[in-house]
Amino acid sequence: VFTSVHARPLAEVVGWARRAAKLGILTDRAHTPAHIAQTLLDAGVEDCRAVVVENLGLPDERLIDTRLAVLPGVADFAPLNVLLLIRASDWRPAPAFAPRPDDAYAHRCGLITKADVRALSLARLMLRETDTVWDIGAGSGAVSIEAAALAWRGRVFAVEHDAENLGYIKENIARFGALNVRVVEGRAPAALEGLPAPSAVFVGGTGGAMQEILARVAAAALPDCRVVVNLAMLESLHAAMAIMQTLGWSPQVTQVNIAQGKVIAGKTRLAPLNPVFIVSGVVQNVD
Amino acid sequence: VFTSVHARPLAEVVGWARRAAKLGILTDRAHTPAHIAQTLLDAGVEDCRAVVVENLGLPDERLIDTRLAVLPGVADFAPLNVLLLIRASDWRPAPAFAPRPDDAYAHRCGLITKADVRALSLARLMLRETDTVWDIGAGSGAVSIEAAALAWRGRVFAVEHDAENLGYIKENIARFGALNVRVVEGRAPAALEGLPAPSAVFVGGTGGAMQEILARVAAAALPDCRVVVNLAMLESLHAAMAIMQTLGWSPQVTQVNIAQGKVIAGKTRLAPLNPVFIVSGVVQNVD
Amino acid sequence: VFTSVHARPLAEVVGWARRAAKLGILTDRAHTPAHIAQTLLDAGVEDCRAVVVENLGLPDERLIDTRLAVLPGVADFAPLNVLLLIRASDWRPAPAFAPRPDDAYAHRCGLITKADVRALSLARLMLRETDTVWDIGAGSGAVSIEAAALAWRGRVFAVEHDAENLGYIKENIARFGALNVRVVEGRAPAALEGLPAPSAVFVGGTGGAMQEILARVAAAALPDCRVVVNLAMLESLHAAMAIMQTLGWSPQVTQVNIAQGKVIAGKTRLAPLNPVFIVSGVVQNVD
Amino acid sequence: VFTSVHARPLAEVVGWARRAAKLGILTDRAHTPAHIAQTLLDAGVEDCRAVVVENLGLPDERLIDTRLAVLPGVADFAPLNVLLLIRASDWRPAPAFAPRPDDAYAHRCGLITKADVRALSLARLMLRETDTVWDIGAGSGAVSIEAAALAWRGRVFAVEHDAENLGYIKENIARFGALNVRVVEGRAPAALEGLPAPSAVFVGGTGGAMQEILARVAAAALPDCRVVVNLAMLESLHAAMAIMQTLGWSPQVTQVNIAQGKVIAGKTRLAPLNPVFIVSGVVQNVD
Repeated sequence: VFTSVHARPLAEVVGWARRAAKLGILTDRAHTPAHIAQTLLDAGVEDCRAVVVENLGLPDERLIDTRLAVLPGVADFAPLNVLLLIRASDWRPAPAFAPRPDDAYAHRCGLITKADVRALSLARLMLRETDTVWDIGAGSGAVSIEAAALAWRGRVFAVEHDAENLGYIKENIARFGALNVRVVEGRAPAALEGLPAPSAVFVGGTGGAMQEILARVAAAALPDCRVVVNLAMLESLHAAMAIMQTLGWSPQVTQVNIAQGKVIAGKTRLAPLNPVFIVSGVVQNVD
Repeated sequence: VFTSVHARPLAEVVGWARRAAKLGILTDRAHTPAHIAQTLLDAGVEDCRAVVVENLGLPDERLIDTRLAVLPGVADFAPLNVLLLIRASDWRPAPAFAPRPDDAYAHRCGLITKADVRALSLARLMLRETDTVWDIGAGSGAVSIEAAALAWRGRVFAVEHDAENLGYIKENIARFGALNVRVVEGRAPAALEGLPAPSAVFVGGTGGAMQEILARVAAAALPDCRVVVNLAMLESLHAAMAIMQTLGWSPQVTQVNIAQGKVIAGKTRLAPLNPVFIVSGVVQNVD
Repeated sequence: VFTSVHARPLAEVVGWARRAAKLGILTDRAHTPAHIAQTLLDAGVEDCRAVVVENLGLPDERLIDTRLAVLPGVADFAPLNVLLLIRASDWRPAPAFAPRPDDAYAHRCGLITKADVRALSLARLMLRETDTVWDIGAGSGAVSIEAAALAWRGRVFAVEHDAENLGYIKENIARFGALNVRVVEGRAPAALEGLPAPSAVFVGGTGGAMQEILARVAAAALPDCRVVVNLAMLESLHAAMAIMQTLGWSPQVTQVNIAQGKVIAGKTRLAPLNPVFIVSGVVQNVD
Repeated sequence: VFTSVHARPLAEVVGWARRAAKLGILTDRAHTPAHIAQTLLDAGVEDCRAVVVENLGLPDERLIDTRLAVLPGVADFAPLNVLLLIRASDWRPAPAFAPRPDDAYAHRCGLITKADVRALSLARLMLRETDTVWDIGAGSGAVSIEAAALAWRGRVFAVEHDAENLGYIKENIARFGALNVRVVEGRAPAALEGLPAPSAVFVGGTGGAMQEILARVAAAALPDCRVVVNLAMLESLHAAMAIMQTLGWSPQVTQVNIAQGKVIAGKTRLAPLNPVFIVSGVVQNVD
């Protein structure tokens, strides 16, 4: 695979580096091999063979065969060059879809969208690689980060107002190199103003503003935008269903009861997660 | 994105066509633009602008600007050429992960891994784009086809012996253009002989041979191979857990209780799916 | 135990006959031994030794030692007598609390309060032997009949308007000898007018009149009356909770997910019942 | 209702006092009105009008009209007398079946058979008023005490070896006046030796001796003895089902998933109980 850093976010280059065994990157003055290498390593890309080809096709073509981990310290490449990443034969791309265990994320105790609920919510979002996603009430950012791995050539806006949660989101973004997640500090719906139109929306929390938030989503959404809401409270479930119904989104509701085996003294007990309701619909744009 | 049909399955070209807005394909004598176009269209790729560039860079370079749907009828291209697919500005790639509704698949009534159970099972398989997957007891093929969409540069072997199911699998493969699913007719474990080593294994049914099947998986698996077993029967659950325990795979069990809202006369009833146990583990290779 | 048919419903005598190994019944002109015996046998009391003592303590005292099943054909007892029922040594009283399998009741397919949901609903009603119970939307009458077995010295009013269901209720009352169940034909709340004040109310269906029905219950109930509502629809759940909240009844909600093992080919599958919500509260009487 | 303390446990008199508005008790030398009154009051029977009739029908017949709470201090009644309890017109008998909230019982945190699981387990035991019940692994004694309220003319043997639990059982027996519960200290099956043959058996815990315990039950049970086992561990579930199958008891399994609404800031969250498996069967006596 061959890509370029020109007019393209580095997040996408990181995405390619996670899935292509051999990757050619056309660099530019702003994004030197050193800068790109540092970005990749920070994002969790493992060290590997790296070849820089300066002045490709020109008489002074030069090939430097080194390691990715060495590049951040090297400053003196020619301005026009190609960076090649070459993986060993047993290298495997990153998982395409693999919700992480809850404990992999920094989060406030008990307050995280559980891995299996994330899986089912992401399934309903039907994300495409290029989607623009709003994650409203992002909490620890776990949904944002896993949405960003699916929509790796798009962007995810993690909207959250709680200071502790904002800290977790930033920590988790750094931990997992989710460069295409943008943190939006503030309360929805106010904080949604000015964001790029979404092609998919996840609502993990509303702070009591379900009506206003869904109205804002209705106004801003791209065609066929999918909206997935997670709810623990019966009253909120009722509100979400009624509002979506009124908006003409044909809400579908699923109750998820998951129990996980915990081994105690060699025997397996089923430990239940809190029941969650997932309500999903498709925005109907009004002309 | 630029790819080639040389020494590469057409399934991968189809995969690229589903996700790249602009795609260049280097053809060869065996895989002419007409052949490739027919394959793409059969696999569900929508018609789009198609440009064939013959003898690229040579004096007799020629550029034919047409539509993908026109190409299957055109036989007289030069042997060396490049096929370019160019999508409209509002084109979007296929969803990266989106389990289909059960009814999208041909299947024996009631006997299909339900969409949400597929989502949770695939989450546990942690598939990579290049994985080799065994789907043992493939049933209608729904899991195979959705695994194949995640492991789109790899292969999925759908192992099934029931004649009716085999018909469904083939129908569903055709319906969704899942070119990287191979149907393996026969009973496991015998039918597993000779298959390429798996990096992930899904077990939807065992026909009473759980022990033999998991032993065969243990012998054949690549390192870190994940195994995910779906079970409806309590006795089979017990067997799967005990066998995996003995094999040292540290089985994790999850019980999934999903209920889906069905609207009747304007009110929403929760209709439960049958409870399913998902047992997953990681093969421990013995040296 | 010694009881009398004077100023007391025969239903209570039936209740005593189900639980006392030795029972003396003081008869009167209207309720002769023949009549009582017929009533007991119709209600399912098994045949047993029966002794009639005429003119007890008088010079012409006479003792007839026979069987219960013989008595209905005997008309010529003295007007004042005592009927004694004497059970064999291995006789056991009827179960005190034992919800019957669903299939024991005549009912419209699928439309019966399931045995385990009955058990949990009756647990919340906290019935006393002398309670007056309203069963609103009685359906097949299963809840009425089992409530009547607990409140065996009280009465249960089974309110139902559907003709088919009314047939089932009457059939089930006869089948299980539930003499203290009164069938009230009509729609609640109208049909509730004139009924004795309830000490416990079960609501199995409302026909869309939840608000009016609970208001009527609020107006009619005895102090500390417990109200238990079964709900399958999310919208009705919301309505019931909101109405009870407004009435000050401190509603408690429970979601019941029961799955029952079904054996197929020697293995046990868990078959789920439809999820049911049970909302219960205590009427707050306003002075 | 008229009863006697002769050749009958006082527990049964307590039972009558809980359900009869008017109760006559024929006392004897060992069980004086003072003693009976103290027992009733200790068991939670409320104070009420009490009339003692000495030398009934004899020339020196004497009637003392007082209160139940006064009697324990009165020693000088004639040896032959009748104690009458007479309740006010608004008196109601005790509930016939009403599992108490978990917190009503002294218990080790988290380790109590939950109220709804008790209800479903008792439903399967189909207790009769005169049953002899074994409660094996009685824990806090909650099941024993509620079984004893149904089998109020029978006896319940609460078998437990844990010292802390034994303390809870005794405390709870005293708290709820469950005079017909006998505490059996020790481990089953050894502790079961010498107990009267059961007509119903509840198994709340086995300490790993499921096989031996059920074998002992099989050997000791009265005809048609019902056995109900509660299980949290998958491995134990499997063992219980297999053992009962082997014994020919036709085990029925039910999985119970209960979630209870908890109100937080005016909204209702569903809090799940741990899933419980209830396996029940009927002992097949071998001749």
